[in-house]
Amino acid sequence: MPELRQDPATKQWVIIARERAKRPHDFIKPVPPPPLPSYKEDCPFCPGNERMTPPETMAYRKGGPPNGPGWWVRAILNKFSALVPDGSISRREEEGLFRKMDGVGQHEVIIESPLHNQCIALMENGQVEEILLAYRERYLALREDPRFKLIIIFKNHGRAAGTSLDHPHSQLVATPIVPLNIRHRFEKAASHFDDDGTCVYCDIIREGLRAPTRMLQETERFVAFHPFASRAPFETWILPKEHQASFGSISMRDAKEFAGVLRTTLFQLYKGLNNPDYNYIIHTAPTKDEHEEYFHWHLQILPRLVTPAGFELGTGIFINAALPEETAAFIRNLPA
Amino acid sequence: MPELRQDPATKQWVIIARERAKRPHDFIKPVPPPPLPSYKEDCPFCPGNERMTPPETMAYRKGGPPNGPGWWVRAILNKFSALVPDGSISRREEEGLFRKMDGVGQHEVIIESPLHNQCIALMENGQVEEILLAYRERYLALREDPRFKLIIIFKNHGRAAGTSLDHPHSQLVATPIVPLNIRHRFEKAASHFDDDGTCVYCDIIREGLRAPTRMLQETERFVAFHPFASRAPFETWILPKEHQASFGSISMRDAKEFAGVLRTTLFQLYKGLNNPDYNYIIHTAPTKDEHEEYFHWHLQILPRLVTPAGFELGTGIFINAALPEETAAFIRNLPA
Repeated sequence: MPELRQDPATKQWVIIARERAKRPHDFIKPVPPPPLPSYKEDCPFCPGNERMTPPETMAYRKGGPPNGPGWWVRAILNKFSALVPDGSISRREEEGLFRKMDGVGQHEVIIESPLHNQCIALMENGQVEEILLAYRERYLALREDPRFKLIIIFKNHGRAAGTSLDHPHSQLVATPIVPLNIRHRFEKAASHFDDDGTCVYCDIIREGLRAPTRMLQETERFVAFHPFASRAPFETWILPKEHQASFGSISMRDAKEFAGVLRTTLFQLYKGLNNPDYNYIIHTAPTKDEHEEYFHWHLQILPRLVTPAGFELGTGIFINAALPEETAAFIRNLPA
Repeated sequence: MPELRQDPATKQWVIIARERAKRPHDFIKPVPPPPLPSYKEDCPFCPGNERMTPPETMAYRKGGPPNGPGWWVRAILNKFSALVPDGSISRREEEGLFRKMDGVGQHEVIIESPLHNQCIALMENGQVEEILLAYRERYLALREDPRFKLIIIFKNHGRAAGTSLDHPHSQLVATPIVPLNIRHRFEKAASHFDDDGTCVYCDIIREGLRAPTRMLQETERFVAFHPFASRAPFETWILPKEHQASFGSISMRDAKEFAGVLRTTLFQLYKGLNNPDYNYIIHTAPTKDEHEEYFHWHLQILPRLVTPAGFELGTGIFINAALPEETAAFIRNLPA
């Protein structure tokens, strides 16, 4: 019979629909995407085409002027920004009932490699570490603007995950509001802390290590697992084991270890499911609560193997046709 | 510059990204889907194949036994039910932290026509009316089960909307929990009522009629429009003008009028955008609050013209590249 499971962190229920159950190998992409060239003349993210993008906000390169080649990670303003830096955060009432405000914020693209056909799953750990350090650097820069209430870092890999450019890149958006979903996430975590005196994510990690059926990897300072109430087949979370509220506080040493865990996790998905499309998102504490005890930064990977339909859009309840205990075992049993 | 707009009913912000702005005609499907046959031998929803489905819960037919042909609308249990009727609604704690329960509920499919290649946009109004009466009948039957806390009616049209079967059908799911998104929707409406003493949806209709830039249709008893804070291009809402909390209270006369408005709205999308994929969802009051003043049932159509990516998944903020005032004008200007 199907089962409802509740995410202890958000209190959101998901349906694990075993009647529709698919075995983990049913999610393997039948045909891998065609190989890409390492350089594409008209790709705005390829080296030498820097003039095709808005100016960079940061780049890691050995010498040479900004907005030229020679970089290995490069952050730029998004040419098609959803939010823009100039504007006010005051609300305006329209016709008494409707409220609007300037679309103020910052929307950056972090180009992950000079190589058009690279992807994190296949990179050297050192390059992944540089990407994570770029995330941290841009996070720390944008948190200084008092208009920005939330900074979200995410990645869209593949068409089904909503990307339109193949060249490997992540995005960072600073928003002038805390959206309801995120506010809710913070409130539930704070409420757990008020009740139990513990961080709910620390509790999840502790339980996960005690009964490791959904565990994928444990290193000295990180864990990766399929969560109890997985919203989608192969949903994966990566967290630091020690309590840390904000991704902005990650140390150099931890960034190195996190890079290895992230790379391995994405490599396992790549090998196990034939390079599936996915999104990942880094959830981090509000910029004012970076040293609080209730929230714990984490990275969530959501493979895009099924299309959410009217039920999911209408209710927010996800129907997951795979059992996280089985998908985790599938990943653990992949040849190394 | 982009704009943030807040839905007055849910308080959810959306980004109207005019920098990415597309003109309404950019959303026209370049190639319409290939035509379908009116009967398909192996389709479980085609007449004569009734043995291929679970037993019917209701059918409109002239004479003849259940589970045979002769029907014009037929409701069945979903063969791949996300939730099933037998089970308990008591919660179980697992390992102290994780909570689960039986996947108890009811998941029905409402087959909208005996014709494999029919669709609501092209039906006679009388057939659409029969579908709506079937929705009402199944809603009223399922609301009697005290274990069911929410009954949601929805439709997935086309692959991008998550459907796997072409034969026209809707779905109805009764869930044993009120999901957080829906609870939130009720709470915000109740809070508006507590503050202003009015139903927020009645207020939205009144403002919409006063300044009808986003209005599509107004009949004696219904309105259809593109909402102020549209989450997606061509998002459309249909509501009864008079306050009515529950879809289950719709009268025969109103069902007839609603059928005409729904059919016209879907026909306009069909003609204007070349048969786009879409979901629609009927939001209705909790079964215990069917005569309360704070909630107002409505149907939301969400065309699936763009793929939500990491930003939407992570924050719940939708980025809409079209201006609802412009998309509404595009629809109004279509040749009749």
